Order: sequence, then structure tokens, then C-alpha cells
Amino acid sequence: MHPASIVAGQPRRRYNRVRIVQFDSISLDGGMTLAPVEVAYETYGELNATKNNAILVLHAFSGDAHAAGIDKETGATGWWDNMIGPGKGFDTDKYFVICSNILAGCRGTSGPGSINPETGCPYAMNFPPVTIPDMVRLQKMLVEHLGIERLLAVSGGSMGAMQALQWAVAYPEAVAAAIPIAGTARHSAQQIAFNEVGRQAIMADPDWNEGNYYGKRPPARGLSVARMVGHITYMSDTSMREKFGRRFRDQDQFEVESYLRYRGSQFVDRFDANSYLYITKAMDYFDLTQGQPSLSAAFVGAKSRFLVISFTSDWLYPSYQSLEVVRALRGRNCDVAYCDLPSTYGHDAFLVHVNEQADLVRGFLSSTFRERS
Amino acid sequence: MHPASIVAGQPRRRYNRVRIVQFDSISLDGGMTLAPVEVAYETYGELNATKNNAILVLHAFSGDAHAAGIDKETGATGWWDNMIGPGKGFDTDKYFVICSNILAGCRGTSGPGSINPETGCPYAMNFPPVTIPDMVRLQKMLVEHLGIERLLAVSGGSMGAMQALQWAVAYPEAVAAAIPIAGTARHSAQQIAFNEVGRQAIMADPDWNEGNYYGKRPPARGLSVARMVGHITYMSDTSMREKFGRRFRDQDQFEVESYLRYRGSQFVDRFDANSYLYITKAMDYFDLTQGQPSLSAAFVGAKSRFLVISFTSDWLYPSYQSLEVVRALRGRNCDVAYCDLPSTYGHDAFLVHVNEQADLVRGFLSSTFRERS
Repeated sequence: MHPASIVAGQPRRRYNRVRIVQFDSISLDGGMTLAPVEVAYETYGELNATKNNAILVLHAFSGDAHAAGIDKETGATGWWDNMIGPGKGFDTDKYFVICSNILAGCRGTSGPGSINPETGCPYAMNFPPVTIPDMVRLQKMLVEHLGIERLLAVSGGSMGAMQALQWAVAYPEAVAAAIPIAGTARHSAQQIAFNEVGRQAIMADPDWNEGNYYGKRPPARGLSVARMVGHITYMSDTSMREKFGRRFRDQDQFEVESYLRYRGSQFVDRFDANSYLYITKAMDYFDLTQGQPSLSAAFVGAKSRFLVISFTSDWLYPSYQSLEVVRALRGRNCDVAYCDLPSTYGHDAFLVHVNEQADLVRGFLSSTFRERS
Repeated sequence: MHPASIVAGQPRRRYNRVRIVQFDSISLDGGMTLAPVEVAYETYGELNATKNNAILVLHAFSGDAHAAGIDKETGATGWWDNMIGPGKGFDTDKYFVICSNILAGCRGTSGPGSINPETGCPYAMNFPPVTIPDMVRLQKMLVEHLGIERLLAVSGGSMGAMQALQWAVAYPEAVAAAIPIAGTARHSAQQIAFNEVGRQAIMADPDWNEGNYYGKRPPARGLSVARMVGHITYMSDTSMREKFGRRFRDQDQFEVESYLRYRGSQFVDRFDANSYLYITKAMDYFDLTQGQPSLSAAFVGAKSRFLVISFTSDWLYPSYQSLEVVRALRGRNCDVAYCDLPSTYGHDAFLVHVNEQADLVRGFLSSTFRERS
């Protein structure tokens, strides 16, 4: 740990509180306009005078704006706290780190659970369909609102990686570097299939009620089953064996069963089932090629440097998907570094297995800051 | 195709009808007795005079007794028809092939949907818990009923492989050869986890009603979601990409989504949700080591020859699980051949990718019949 984060032998506790900014409206890919639109975000570190040290961190499917530090109200630690902080991979002694909740989310940013001003009721399934480019467009509005013209870097894992790639393609002048981790340029049939199972589990729950459950009993059983499927795909066969094996929790229940049930039921308390439907659809529809024959064509205007990271045991977002991005970037003669990090943690590796990842990110940001900012 | 199966240039259509045999009772591992107990079975080919040409084929989780030929009533083709028939892997011109529905199933053999003679109503969740050894014990009763003392071979894929291994361990004198395909000696945490998601999906459906849905609306939505998860695990990433890719069926739906929904809803018509719960539990609890430190110890009394087959793209029952069985058998100096067949079909390979598999089985059976019968 960086010395600056130690106070009297104890790590300095960094408290954060989510902030909300409201914009008049946002135009969406589907042709609709959402008005108004709110974005929940947190920041860590200080923006320097030349405003060239800002990094936008992009969360995965079920993440939120609380990426680092301790939440002042709940006491919860941020989802990437091991990567963001003084001396860490995203070093807040040097950089100004921003993280916002995605559009259609349920953690402060406008989503299906938000009030539709026209009706005074939650949008529910009347919330307009959103895309990954829509999410990124809203992030761009936030970044401009913070007075930043050009980001030093955009980075995220899983769906965060998709957003990072979209940033580099949509706003090439506004991003010096992109760090997509454990991601893809488009979902495979298997990835779509797993998301579809989650959606069907939610919609099979009578409490889902076509999405109109706000103020009533939410579709907790369906959402819980959806989350259980997710958790299996986030781990590897090896990490499940090491964590649970065939151990019993009690006479009738394997440890892995009780773990999945617990994680499923816990998720229900913090996530909105309709957001699950909207966000997974956005992931599935995302295709950086946009119908072009090759992925390389998508990067025709890209100007960022790239650091692409994958993990050997990640079978949900397998390394070949990151390699496909790397090949396409090389095909455009882009500045790209690629690392396939050895790990047994599966897709979760980008959240838990951070030593090598942090070193790679630290070095890459440092040279980008020196050469490109 | 074998000449004998051609009549006037057309393949000979082989019709079959499932038969049912009733036994007074069966003692179960859990200490309970099921009385009476019925077994549904079919046979193909002819038992020879010395009764040494019988092969018992063991079905996977959702299979049934109708393994080959055309069902006289429904017109359905058997689930392993490409492996069982004149000149096929299990050559019915030479061998007498038997297949029975497993205990706790829902296709003719006693299961939770059967009538409890004490109440006159379906057992539902009062059906006693059953194990893989219980299933095999009932198969042994059927084989004896057919007048067969010693089987030339037992063979099956997936859960059928678990039963084949159990046969070789429990009844070493009664099996000349065992052919476990795409199986394991015990489920991993990941395999248990996928089964648990299916169970939770069923039990989350209010129509499940603690298992008391007979004569009412069955838990179709839950069972359908469970089956969707299953189908993803039966295919490989590659086979899903080749079969569906990112193609759309209509504007709002990927082909893979519509396929999974169709397969899910179709399953509901032919499978009982309570059987799903009982059978998956039996699979998860199965552990050939029975608490012994090494798998090798399990094979201490085994006398069969073994042909173990796995498929390179099977990630549900990965090759390392078959290799674990092979190593344990070699540790006991058992006669074992092992083949890891290249295939992109994933776990489904044992059902669909049968050319090499059929050749291996044919040769192995032939030498066993010559040397050991």
C-alpha cells in the first residue's frame, strides 16, 4: 500500500458519497428521448489544473457508481476498491477517477424504476430501450459537465469493457487510452443464451407482472434464479472446486448450493428486475461491427492507445474474444498491448485477482500520461 | 447401413413398444422400501441361447426406455437410434440390447408421479429419495427377470456413464465390460451448481406447490427455465456459434433465444418436474468413492473391461473427469481403454457425433464377446 494512504499505521479510510446530476434530456439510439435524465456518480482523487488526469471507470452489469472507498451511508466498500486508491492501479494520488451508474440501472441513474414525469409513476417496461452507445453518450455528458474535454483513460471489466471500446470508437478525440478487461466486441450465442435464461427466469415469476411490481412484491424468486445462473458463469470450474468442492453445509445441502441461494436472495435487495432485463438486452444487442464485415472496420477512426486484458480461466468472456479485438486493432495499426493473465478465478478475476492487473494498468497509465496527455 | 436393414432399397423400419414389469418391492439406500415398483423397458435384437450377448444401455438424465427404433404409438425415434441397430455401434444383429427408464423417472418406471398405493394419489414429494445405486439395483432386478446372469456390457452417456460405473463396482460378476461415456465418478461443484439452478427454478414456480400439482397446472415456467439452462450446458460455445451465431429470428429475438424457449416449452410436455428434482439430486449425491480417500479404492473389486470415452469440447463433463476414472482403473491394474474424441458438439456429442464412437464401441464389444463372454 502506498505510504500516503497510511495514517498512524492504519490505512486511511476514504469515505465517498454518490452525487446525482440531472440533464434536460438524452436522445437514444432507438429514436426516443428521455427527459429528464439523471446520472449517479462518484469521484476519487483530484482533477488537476490542466484537467488531463481524468479516468472514467465503467462498471459491469450489476455494478454501480460506488467503485472505491467506503460509502458514507452504508459503509459498503466500492466494487473496485482494490484497483482504485492511493498507490493502486488507478492511483488517486495522480489521477482523478470518475465512476457513474449506467443508464437503465437502478443505483441512482435513470432506469425503469425511475418516475416517468408524464405519469407520476415508475416507467417500468415503458422505459425506452437503451443501448451501450446510449450509456456511453450519457457518460460523455457527465464528463463534459465535469469540465473535462479529454479523458486520460476509460477502463472497465465485462460490460465495462464493452463501454470502453464504445468510447474509443464513438469519441476518439476524447480518450487518450482505453483499457477493456475481460470483455468482447459482441456477445456470442452462448453469452446471449445465459442472459436469456436470466430474463426468462424473471419473466416466469408471476410477481414480475409485466414489469408492474413497483410498490408491490418484486419478482424476487425469478431474479434470484437469474443471479444464481450469473454467479456460476462468473466463476471457473476450478475456483468452484477450490471454494466449495463437494463439501456439505448440512446433511441435505452442498455448500455450493447454499452459497448460490444466498447470493441470489442477497441480489434481490439491491437490484431491480426490470433493470436486469434492459441491461442484459443492451449487452446482447451490442455489436461494435454494426453490421460491417470485419471488426477492424469498427476501429477506423480510433485514436486511443489500448491495453486489452483477459484471464485464462474466464469461460464467460473467453480470451479469444479479447484476442479478436486485439487483432482488429492491429489490423488498423493501432497502439495495442495485450495480456492474457493466468488466473483460476474465471470471469471474476478482474474483480479479485488484481496484483498483475494493477501493475499493468499502473504502467500503461503512467506512460500514457507522460506521452499523450 | 447394414444390408440386413435394407428392404427393397428402404431402411427397414424397426418398431418398438415399451414394456412394463412389476416387482413386489425394492429396498432403497435411504432405508425405505418402495412397493410395488414398476420398470419400463424396451429390447432390441435377440437374446442368444447361451444368454451371453446382452447389453444394457443406460440413459442420461432426461432420457427414457425408448433408445432405438420407432415407437409404435408415437412414431418417435429412440434417443440413441444412431448407435443401436443392425450394423451400428451396438449391433442388434449380434447383440440383445436392453434399455429401461430409471427409477424416479417419469416415462413408465416408478417415480414421484406414480400412484402411492397407500393413499391412491401420486407420491409427489413423498416418493422416497433414490440414489444412482438404487437405480442400478432396479436394473439388476430387470436383467435377472429377463433370465440374464451376466451382461456382455453396460454403457451410457452422462448420467448413464455414472450408472455404468456403478454397475461395474456393485455387480462385478455380472458385467463383462463397461463403457462410460462423457461421465464422471462424482459431480463437481459446478455440476451441482447447474443442477441446483434448475431445481430452484422449478421450486420458484408457484405452480410447483410443494410438488402437489398432479391433476392441476404443472410448474411449466420453472421447468422450462431449468431446461434452458440444461441446453446451454449440453452444447459448446463453438456449436452454439455455428448453429445460431448472432442471427436474428425476428427483429426482437436472437435465434438462440427462440431455440431455447422452444426447447424449454417442449420439455414441459414430456417431463415431470418432481422427477427433475429427484434425479438431479441422485446425480449430485453420487460419489463412487463413497468417502474413501481415493477413487482407485472404489474399483477394488471391479472385474470388467472398461472403455472410457470423453469429448474434447464437453465442458459440462470435462475430459479430466473421465481421465480421473481411467487413472483410478489403471491404479487397480484394470483393463481400460480411453479415448478423448475430438468434437465441437460439447456434451451432446455422445448423442450426435457418433461415427468414431460407434467404431470404438463396435470393436470393443466384438473383442469382449470373443474373449470374455
